[in-house]
This record gives sequence, C-alpha cells and structure tokens, in this order.
Amino acid sequence: MAQSVPQPDQALLDDLVAANRILYKKEIVDGLGHVSVRHDKNPQLYILAAERAPGLVEREDLAIYNLDSNAQTLQNRRPYNERFIHGEIYKARPDVHSVIHCHTPSLVTFCVCQTPLRPLYHMSGFLGRGVARFEIRETAGMTDMLCSTPALGAALAKSLADKQIVLMRGHGATITGQSVKHAVLRAIYAALNATMQMDAMRMGEVMYLSDEEAMKGMEINDRFVDRSWALWKLEAMGAI
Amino acid sequence: MAQSVPQPDQALLDDLVAANRILYKKEIVDGLGHVSVRHDKNPQLYILAAERAPGLVEREDLAIYNLDSNAQTLQNRRPYNERFIHGEIYKARPDVHSVIHCHTPSLVTFCVCQTPLRPLYHMSGFLGRGVARFEIRETAGMTDMLCSTPALGAALAKSLADKQIVLMRGHGATITGQSVKHAVLRAIYAALNATMQMDAMRMGEVMYLSDEEAMKGMEINDRFVDRSWALWKLEAMGAI
Amino acid sequence: MAQSVPQPDQALLDDLVAANRILYKKEIVDGLGHVSVRHDKNPQLYILAAERAPGLVEREDLAIYNLDSNAQTLQNRRPYNERFIHGEIYKARPDVHSVIHCHTPSLVTFCVCQTPLRPLYHMSGFLGRGVARFEIRETAGMTDMLCSTPALGAALAKSLADKQIVLMRGHGATITGQSVKHAVLRAIYAALNATMQMDAMRMGEVMYLSDEEAMKGMEINDRFVDRSWALWKLEAMGAI
Amino acid sequence: MAQSVPQPDQALLDDLVAANRILYKKEIVDGLGHVSVRHDKNPQLYILAAERAPGLVEREDLAIYNLDSNAQTLQNRRPYNERFIHGEIYKARPDVHSVIHCHTPSLVTFCVCQTPLRPLYHMSGFLGRGVARFEIRETAGMTDMLCSTPALGAALAKSLADKQIVLMRGHGATITGQSVKHAVLRAIYAALNATMQMDAMRMGEVMYLSDEEAMKGMEINDRFVDRSWALWKLEAMGAI
Repeated sequence: MAQSVPQPDQALLDDLVAANRILYKKEIVDGLGHVSVRHDKNPQLYILAAERAPGLVEREDLAIYNLDSNAQTLQNRRPYNERFIHGEIYKARPDVHSVIHCHTPSLVTFCVCQTPLRPLYHMSGFLGRGVARFEIRETAGMTDMLCSTPALGAALAKSLADKQIVLMRGHGATITGQSVKHAVLRAIYAALNATMQMDAMRMGEVMYLSDEEAMKGMEINDRFVDRSWALWKLEAMGAI
Repeated sequence: MAQSVPQPDQALLDDLVAANRILYKKEIVDGLGHVSVRHDKNPQLYILAAERAPGLVEREDLAIYNLDSNAQTLQNRRPYNERFIHGEIYKARPDVHSVIHCHTPSLVTFCVCQTPLRPLYHMSGFLGRGVARFEIRETAGMTDMLCSTPALGAALAKSLADKQIVLMRGHGATITGQSVKHAVLRAIYAALNATMQMDAMRMGEVMYLSDEEAMKGMEINDRFVDRSWALWKLEAMGAI
Repeated sequence: MAQSVPQPDQALLDDLVAANRILYKKEIVDGLGHVSVRHDKNPQLYILAAERAPGLVEREDLAIYNLDSNAQTLQNRRPYNERFIHGEIYKARPDVHSVIHCHTPSLVTFCVCQTPLRPLYHMSGFLGRGVARFEIRETAGMTDMLCSTPALGAALAKSLADKQIVLMRGHGATITGQSVKHAVLRAIYAALNATMQMDAMRMGEVMYLSDEEAMKGMEINDRFVDRSWALWKLEAMGAI
Repeated sequence: MAQSVPQPDQALLDDLVAANRILYKKEIVDGLGHVSVRHDKNPQLYILAAERAPGLVEREDLAIYNLDSNAQTLQNRRPYNERFIHGEIYKARPDVHSVIHCHTPSLVTFCVCQTPLRPLYHMSGFLGRGVARFEIRETAGMTDMLCSTPALGAALAKSLADKQIVLMRGHGATITGQSVKHAVLRAIYAALNATMQMDAMRMGEVMYLSDEEAMKGMEINDRFVDRSWALWKLEAMGAI
C-alpha cells in the first residue's frame, strides 16, 4: 500500500455487502458480476470485493482500490479481472458513486439486438437519460469480451459518457448510481423494464415515457429508494 | 386527530396485514405498491399502512385516514404519497371496500399497449366488467406519473368509473374489491390473465369468455375466496 | 353413509395427500384444483379431499365418495362443487384410477386457442394418445364454466373419451392416470410441454414425436414414475 | 466385479454429489437426468449414481462402471438405463472427463426446432465449437427416444463428434466437460443462452459472438469456474 488509506464509514461497507447479496437474490448477478462504491473519505479510492461470487461476499472480502484499480488493501487475495470497469468510470464520472457490472439475462438480450431499451414506466425513468452501447471490437478487435485492462475500462467509460447504463455487446451491462442504493435500484428496474419491453413489443405499438416524464419519474423514485432498500437488505441478509 | 376515531375490527386489521404480505409473496407488489381497506365502523374512513414496503408491513404500521386522505392516527410517520388513489376511489365508489395499487410487470405491460385485457377463464371473470384506462397527461400534462394529489386521485377514480380495475399508462394498475380478500383475488388473477393472454395471442385467435360467462364466473369465484385466502394467509405470514 | 365403506390402504391415502402437496409445489394447482384416487378396495368409490386448497390438504381432509359423487364419509365439511368431474370419469373409464383438475396457466393458454397440444419429447409422450377438448356451451350454454353438476361431469367424461387429458375452454384441464403417481406425472409434463411448445412454435417448424415414439415414450416413462415420485414427495412433504 | 477397482479421490466424489444437487437446484435436471465423472485413477472407468433422482443423490449412491457401462460396484441397485450415453462418450472422447444428460426445457425447445443454438455472450462461448444434433431415427427407427443400449450410446457419441454438446431430437441434451465443474458450467450457460436467444430472435437480427470471441470467452470462463462453483456447491448442499 503506497500511502495511508482512510477507513470507510462502516455503514457504507454494510451497504456494499448488502448490495452484493441483494443483486444475487434479485438475479441481477449470478456467480459472476460485481458492485463497488466510491470511498466516502477520499474520492480517489473505491471499495470492491476481492474475487468472489457476490452472493457470498462478506465484510472481510472488501478491499480498497485507487482509481487506476490498484489494490491498496487486498491481502493474499485475487482482485476481479474487470475491476478497471469500476476505476475508469469513477475517474471519468465524478457524479458516480457506485458501479455494478452484471450479465443479467434480460439485459444481455438487449445487448445483442439493435432494439433500443426505453423506459416503459416511472420506475425505470432513468433510462430516459439514454442507454449507451459498448462494442469492444472497436477498441480491441477480437477478445474474450472482458474489460480486463485499463484501456478497455477507459473505452467503456467513454462509451458510457453521461449516461447511467451501458449495454456491452456479447457480454452484459454496467450500471451506475449516485449511491450504492441507487445503483442497485437502477439495475433491478433496468432488468424488469427489459423483460416487460420485450413482451410489450410483441403486442404492438408501445407507449414509452416522454423524456420529461422519465426525468421526473427518476427524480421521485430516487427520493424513495430507502423504502425498497429496507426490504431488500433484510431479505438478502437473511433477517426475514 | 380532528375527532374521535373508532377502533376497527381486529380481524380486519389482521387481514390487511396479511394482504400486504400476500401481495408481496405473489409478486403483485415489490418494494412499492399499497393496499387499503375501508373502515368497518365508519365508511368515511379507510385504513392504510404508513410508508413502508408491503412485504414488511405489520399491525403497528397501520393508520386511519379520512376520505380526503388526511391521516387521523399517523404518528411520526410519513404517509404514502399516492394515498389519494385510495381516498378518492372510496369517495366515488361506495361499493368498494378495498383498493390495491401496484406495478405488477404483466399488468404494466398491458398499460403501455393498446391491446385490451380480456378474461380468458372464470378466475378472471371480473375483467368482463371492463378494464378502465388512465392517461395522466389528460389531467396534468407531463408529470412523474404518480397520483400524489387529491385532483389526480379524483381523476383516476373518474377513469375507473364503475369498473374494478384501471390500467395507468406508464405506471401500474389500481384494483378494487368488495373486501380486502376480493381485491387480492382480483389482483392475482388479473396479473395471471395478463401473462396468459400475451402467450395466447401469440398462438393465434383467442377465445375469450362471453360477458355472461365472465359475470357468472366472477360470482362463483367471489363466493369461494376463502379457500384461496386460507392458503395465502398461512403462507404469507410464515405459518407454513 | 348408506352402507359400510371399506377402509382404503393407508399408503394410498398418504400418496393422495402427497399428490395434493406436489401439485401445489409444482404450480399445477394454486388455491383451487383437486386430485382424487379410485378406492383400492371398491372401484365404485373414490377418495377426494373436502373443500380445501390442495397445498393444505391433510389426511383428515380426505373423504370417500360414490361414483355419483355423493359423500360417504364427509362429516361437517363441504365437498368440492366440481367433484362430479371425478365421479363421472371414474364411471366412464374403468382404466382410470386417478383424476386431477387444475387451472395451470400454460394449459389454460392452450384451452383458449385452437392450436393442438402435441408431444415434443418422450416425457409427454402420453399426449400422443390425443388431447380432448371440452366446450361447456355445447352442453349448458352460458355458465360459470364449472362442471358442478352430474350432467356436466358426464359431458366432460364424454369429451375425454379414451384420452388422458381434456382441455376445458375458458377453464382449465382434467388429467387422468392409472394411478395417482401417473396422473401427477402427466399433469407436470403436460404443463411443461405446453410451455416449451409455445416457445418452439415461435422459432418455426416444430418436430413432434411420431405416434409410435409417443406411445413408446409413454410406456417407458410410466415404468419409471417412482424415481421422480420419491423426489417430489420428499420435497412436498417438507422432508428435504 | 471382475477385477480390483481403485478407490476414487474423495474430493471427486464430493464434487459429483454436489454436481447432482446443483443441476437440480439450477433446474437443469428434474427427477430425471444424470451426471458422471471419469475415474481419476483409471480412465477406463467412470462414476455415476445408481438409479435415483439427481436432487437426492448421496455419496452412498455412487457406483463405478467400466466403459462398456457394466457396473463394477453397484450392489442391489438398478443402474440408469441410459448409462451408455456416459460410457460411449468416454470411450470416444479421451478429453472428456464429465458427462451430463438432461431434459432442460430451454434446450429441449431447441432440440425440436431447426434453429441453430449459437453463443450470445462470453459465458456460453463454448457453443462456438459447435452444437451437435442427434436423430435417433437414423440409428434405430421408431423408439422410446432413450439411449438405453451400447449401440445407441455409440451413435450419440458419434453425433457428438468433437463438440461439447449434442441436442437430441425429442429428448434432451448431453453436455461434456474437461471436469465435472466445467460440465456443470456448460449446462447452466447453455440453458441460459437458449432462453436468451429465443427472446433475442423475437426482437430482430441477433449479434452472435464471432468464432474467435467464442473461443476466447470459453477459455477465460473455464479458468474462473471455481468462483461460481463455490457458490453453487454451498447452496446446493444446504450450507447457505
């Protein structure tokens, strides 16, 4: 560890552990996928578990990385190969405080089609800010699809631009939020919207939210994230 | 509290708690959504939980509102923003004794399409009385989609008219019943009917119930609601 | 009780209770639906629970009926309104020793479409013997869709003819077997076949089993019903 | 037992029990289906449970077979009728160390359609090596669809050729791996890919992985199989 690393707020660590478990319970991630949060004491650092299935992540698995995705506290553990997704987005987007990377089936389905993912209802209003797409071939040609280098992480962050979600062709999705709770909220409702949109499109013309409705829907839902979070956290931590 | 509020029947409160849990377990609501019941001692009052995820609602969360949706007993808690859905429907519809508001995926899918939701089988016969639609733009232009004012609640109640369900574009559904058990029954089978109808329409011409079959089916099912309720309540309360 | 009623084999009663629970756990029935077995000591009798959700049925709920569906042992309990489905099929079909009536979604979907339900694989080979259809309007005009009279039960049995499953328009399915285990096996795989067939038809031309393959598949699967039953029963009775 | 049979590694047996349970929990198998592993001490032997639902398989159920699928250690138990699927593939394919046979719904759906199953994302990259098809009629005419003889097992192995998965018309799938963990990984992601591909095809043109991407995706995922396995095993064995 190059320099002294501040201790993150304990509640933040609790929420990050909960986020790992919630994302698994809600089938946003499976054995793979990961979620991080920007350090509350130093925005040049972020917190992410060592390599482990999200459904198993515990407090002891959490490590601190700098924005080049070099581990500051990881002892005798392997980091996720794709940690650069997190570090490079935190570098490029000061407003982002949490990043989720996942292979959620309904989102992967949109990743491999040209159909735009658009908000059907207020719960996924954030999609109205746009859904970015990432084609790894443009940066690196024929690959194993993973963003496992700084350059690929940076290319992904560039594709994301000012959006909150990027669909990665042949791979999965990366979703951001102003907090770990908001990132989880976005992931869950992006996946639900994708499923409903596929069904709706098969019935004919779909009435999407207008841009203004989408933005207002996003704002109101962002304010009420704690109502869902209280439920999700209790469930995912086995308390109910 | 402006005046003396009568104590509701304890069994009614038990059923309302159960309804919250059942609707969550059956995936009619998620972290959001709500269910209310008209007060058994005073039809100018209704009972609804304070702001909380339905899956977590307990007896202590229940509060009493008048039909203007002003809380009569809510202490140090926030009410649901959309409580006006409940109050305004109770005002307009003396026959309604329970109201459910939800974002059930299969129903939201119909909310954003023009395809009419129609009864496929006796269990959803009540759809034969018609499925109302609510377009919030007609009342309030570009909004966050929520019915969070008395005027919007009243507009929704007007759209509902004499039906038992109203599909709200870009938002969700509101479902009524002559009791909390019947409202839950309708919500569960409306959602199932929606899922089956989408599948059936993809196979070709669909044979819907006639109006007479739908009404007779509704009547017989309404008489046997206790059979399902006994199961649902035991499950949702963790007794089995 | 008009005459002395023999005591059924205890293992048969155990299996009937298990069948109720299995059908619920596998989502073949919900709060409604029912399953019966022909009496092992007297083929003019059958065993069926008193009115109760199948997922809750216990040994004490079981009652004995004659083939006119008059209860021989039901004390202070209500019978299912549609018990005539069971009695009339047992009358018409000496080879049938168990009857299931259900509203399984994937089967209801086929009930309201003209598309024939056909066997995709050996597990549903029994569909190769044909899938009957019942249109209640032909017997009784506009009804509540229920087979709640002897005449309607008899009409259903006539529609079933020599098949093992009948799809009832706007209602559900009735499935038979040479034992309660076989009836459960047929119900589970009929529902699965329906789901897969809907998906397969959307991909283009479907290769169904030939009649000979279907019959041979049915025979081999009928011989191995105990392998699945052992698992299903342990699960449904909460033993694993 | 014709000759002395070496004792397999205990960890291998543990993993084989876990594989049975995982495949059930992940709905790759139901009451039927089976999974085997090549013996670690003698490649002319393999290990497979006696006839039992995979979800119930315990260490005591495991038996050792030679490559002609004659049981070497099975005492008073019946073998699976289709054990020849395993033995004949081990004979033909020295690189294969584990075989899964299943009737997974999403895979059966592809079995009965002409649509090629192709890799959508890195997790199912192994599909890029090709998906074989087996038509039992070519070998044996009208059958019960089962590979229950050495000749049918050999015909299946011939259809598999150098691929890792073979879709058996009107029956199910057989999937191979270089270890039991890899076979389970392939089964789970083949099934998921099938489900997503059906959805994607309904949205229009699908962007599949290129052959090179598929191979590289397979290689990277094969290296990280332990991350998912740790989760799956704990879950399936009831440890979490």
